[in-house]
Amino acid sequence: MTSSDTPSYHMTPDQFRRYGRAVVDWIADYMERVESYPVLSQVQPGQIRAGLPAQPPAQGEPFEAILADLEPLIMPGITHWQSPNFFAFFPANASGPAILGDLLSSGLGVQGMLWATSPACTELETHVLDWLVDMLGLPEKFKSTTAGGGVIQDTASSATLTALLAGRERATGWQSNERGADGRLVAYTSTQAHSSVEKAAKIAGLGRQNLRLIEVDERFAMRPEALAQQIEADRRAGLVPCFVCATVGTTSSNAMDPLRPIGEVCQTEGVWLHVDAAMSGTAALCPEFRWIHDGVELADSYAFNPHKWMFTNFDCDCFWVADRAALIRTLSILPEYLRNQATESGAVFDYRDWHIPLGRRFRALKLWFVIRHYGVEGLRYHVRRHVELAQQFAAWVQADPRFELAAPAPLNLVCFRLRAGDEANRRLMDRLNRSGHLYLTHTVLDGKVTLRLCVGQTHTEARHVEAAWRRICEAAEAVVGEQ
Amino acid sequence: MTSSDTPSYHMTPDQFRRYGRAVVDWIADYMERVESYPVLSQVQPGQIRAGLPAQPPAQGEPFEAILADLEPLIMPGITHWQSPNFFAFFPANASGPAILGDLLSSGLGVQGMLWATSPACTELETHVLDWLVDMLGLPEKFKSTTAGGGVIQDTASSATLTALLAGRERATGWQSNERGADGRLVAYTSTQAHSSVEKAAKIAGLGRQNLRLIEVDERFAMRPEALAQQIEADRRAGLVPCFVCATVGTTSSNAMDPLRPIGEVCQTEGVWLHVDAAMSGTAALCPEFRWIHDGVELADSYAFNPHKWMFTNFDCDCFWVADRAALIRTLSILPEYLRNQATESGAVFDYRDWHIPLGRRFRALKLWFVIRHYGVEGLRYHVRRHVELAQQFAAWVQADPRFELAAPAPLNLVCFRLRAGDEANRRLMDRLNRSGHLYLTHTVLDGKVTLRLCVGQTHTEARHVEAAWRRICEAAEAVVGEQ
Repeated sequence: MTSSDTPSYHMTPDQFRRYGRAVVDWIADYMERVESYPVLSQVQPGQIRAGLPAQPPAQGEPFEAILADLEPLIMPGITHWQSPNFFAFFPANASGPAILGDLLSSGLGVQGMLWATSPACTELETHVLDWLVDMLGLPEKFKSTTAGGGVIQDTASSATLTALLAGRERATGWQSNERGADGRLVAYTSTQAHSSVEKAAKIAGLGRQNLRLIEVDERFAMRPEALAQQIEADRRAGLVPCFVCATVGTTSSNAMDPLRPIGEVCQTEGVWLHVDAAMSGTAALCPEFRWIHDGVELADSYAFNPHKWMFTNFDCDCFWVADRAALIRTLSILPEYLRNQATESGAVFDYRDWHIPLGRRFRALKLWFVIRHYGVEGLRYHVRRHVELAQQFAAWVQADPRFELAAPAPLNLVCFRLRAGDEANRRLMDRLNRSGHLYLTHTVLDGKVTLRLCVGQTHTEARHVEAAWRRICEAAEAVVGEQ
Repeated sequence: MTSSDTPSYHMTPDQFRRYGRAVVDWIADYMERVESYPVLSQVQPGQIRAGLPAQPPAQGEPFEAILADLEPLIMPGITHWQSPNFFAFFPANASGPAILGDLLSSGLGVQGMLWATSPACTELETHVLDWLVDMLGLPEKFKSTTAGGGVIQDTASSATLTALLAGRERATGWQSNERGADGRLVAYTSTQAHSSVEKAAKIAGLGRQNLRLIEVDERFAMRPEALAQQIEADRRAGLVPCFVCATVGTTSSNAMDPLRPIGEVCQTEGVWLHVDAAMSGTAALCPEFRWIHDGVELADSYAFNPHKWMFTNFDCDCFWVADRAALIRTLSILPEYLRNQATESGAVFDYRDWHIPLGRRFRALKLWFVIRHYGVEGLRYHVRRHVELAQQFAAWVQADPRFELAAPAPLNLVCFRLRAGDEANRRLMDRLNRSGHLYLTHTVLDGKVTLRLCVGQTHTEARHVEAAWRRICEAAEAVVGEQ
């Protein structure tokens, strides 16, 4: 029996060339027309499913038919994160070199759970994460050439969980892994920290009640003295402080927790300090913004997301630890079927022991492509532009008596609101998002509904921010007029 | 200031067209020449890093230069999971339609944490996972149209952890999330289960000592009566059984835990039953292999990986629960900045509450492309071929007096060994893997080193399995001759 005698349903390399070009052209067209779509999808719940056949196809379909279905069946249900008019949440930006690096990762199809299962997948990742330590001005102790090292995780949520687990184990002499967590373990973060810290405390068996939400100052930054007092009180109560998560750029308002005094508390207390710089870490590419990291040398671990603001498509979170042995001891598992000579030699990293999943794709390729395509200079240029545009927007808000800034705007996120109250702000946001011209989201600061405008999409330029402000002003007029 | 006045380091849509075609062609060339590479990378530790510049580039580089570096700098460090001569571990196969669906996901660049952040990302996923319930003959209770539903996770490791967390919460009245896990929670799996179950027990705060490894029968399948006895003993000791993980196709030997009697124990005891069918679940596309799922209607959750054997590139694990409310209650977090009308209406799924990370890419696209490209018929055809080839290989082993089968070979994994002992088998494997002609890995069964040959790579045909057997026989001759 030879292959020519048998049917094959596979796409041949030549078909892949043809259809691959069609998909590349489709994406290029999308890049050119992305501004023509409403940014926030306007469909109703169930509308996309209603367009899909109830049963899977018994026979295969031509690729042309599948591709042709994208526009009518899928595109109405897309919220356009790659629109330059996307100002919501934090960005998840992307770029040509990232997409193509990721395409090569899919094409090579390697699974890098062990060094041996593709040494390049491990070594390029280690190498590029060492590069990034220098690019962001992070401490040498995070480099793989010291006792530390970096690894790509899917998201900052997973990085926070991973760090919490290492902190939990270190605080209990690696006994929680053996005997289970107990109700005495306590973790700390600010009231403004990301919801993933609470999720991690639940997952890791600490419990929500054992996550202390430390109060913040008028800039929404954690108060280090409150942290110190709480840790002391918990120790007096016989509890075991194990983990502090400080945030460089909170999701609500881009508040910057003061790393140095927090780090000093953690050093004194011997508590693991993790720094979550998911979006704002990218700013440290530019020396003038490195003040956000002041004191980071006191941290045990640090994470930022190139998939937010560094032109690298999702998913790509970079996570470093100062003591990789502690991390590996926390997560290591070695069943017989994964044993191999390279691992036993101790000369290699097996990244399966650096995160929650076992398997992993070759995500370093897209990061390598982005850094090489832009160069440090190109990345800095665009980060500076985004900050400049956000600062311009903040100035317009401040100069307009109908509005107020709701928080300091240190970088590329502006929190603002109409002085006319919560209901007016809610209606303003809904009107803007329904228009499809732009997309922004809200938070609550000081008990008041607050709009957030974050400048970080790859192709956002001055004209988009100018148009956003014009539309916000027009909509504000309508909303306040209705009252 | 307009965009034309300012420099841009971005790749333009026209450049993306040009470079995108170059990358597509590169991958098509790779598909054509993949058999010319040694399957297992032959580099030494540090060799790939040594070829990379110590510093990141200050200025951007031409895309042609980046792409040209792949062959000399990266390819020597690739272990070729997409080679038809890859028989190691379990496969991580891929296909043209999957790669192109994933490319579109990168190009659209949506982040589907909430329904609203791209309704199509959520609804296509829900829909395709409902399709798969029918395609695999799984129980209706896993469909989103009932109280259940499916979600794509990155890996089976994460699916197991997610299921364990839901079981933990259900067993403690959702109090572990509040007050922390305690040392009384107990989980169960077989001695042959995947290492991810132990990893999950550690992460979730149960502790390794509270994971009971239930003994197996002569086919390496969990003994349900031993499970029942252990649960009873633990209850008598005042412990809280919360989770059982049964495996459909263990990693070591493809053993099939008997789901029906295990499920009956779990129902009686009110313990969450998760079924890990990471590789073998795909076989259930074919009605004649659905016996592997007998009793799955007694499970609370179930997972299999299209990224192993269903031609969908990594990562793509499909995970279903019968009671989605229990899962959501376990993982839900709702900070103000994620609140939105669609969520509050209760009419939509927000998949952020169905897994560990918050963010997620549009992975359903690649799965949709694979199912539509192959049709159920095409998928079945290739699964049957793989099983047939593995069975042929098993027959050759059985007919050769130098070798023995080390375990039943129910599907596409054959566990075999030389009768000449552990050292001979180790040398046989090393010789084969060093040759570059094929790649297979080992396990230990009944205390003996055992080789594993798994047929599941997309393009593995009869000629590859025939050549593998021929090479194994030649190498065996050399190895035994050396003794």
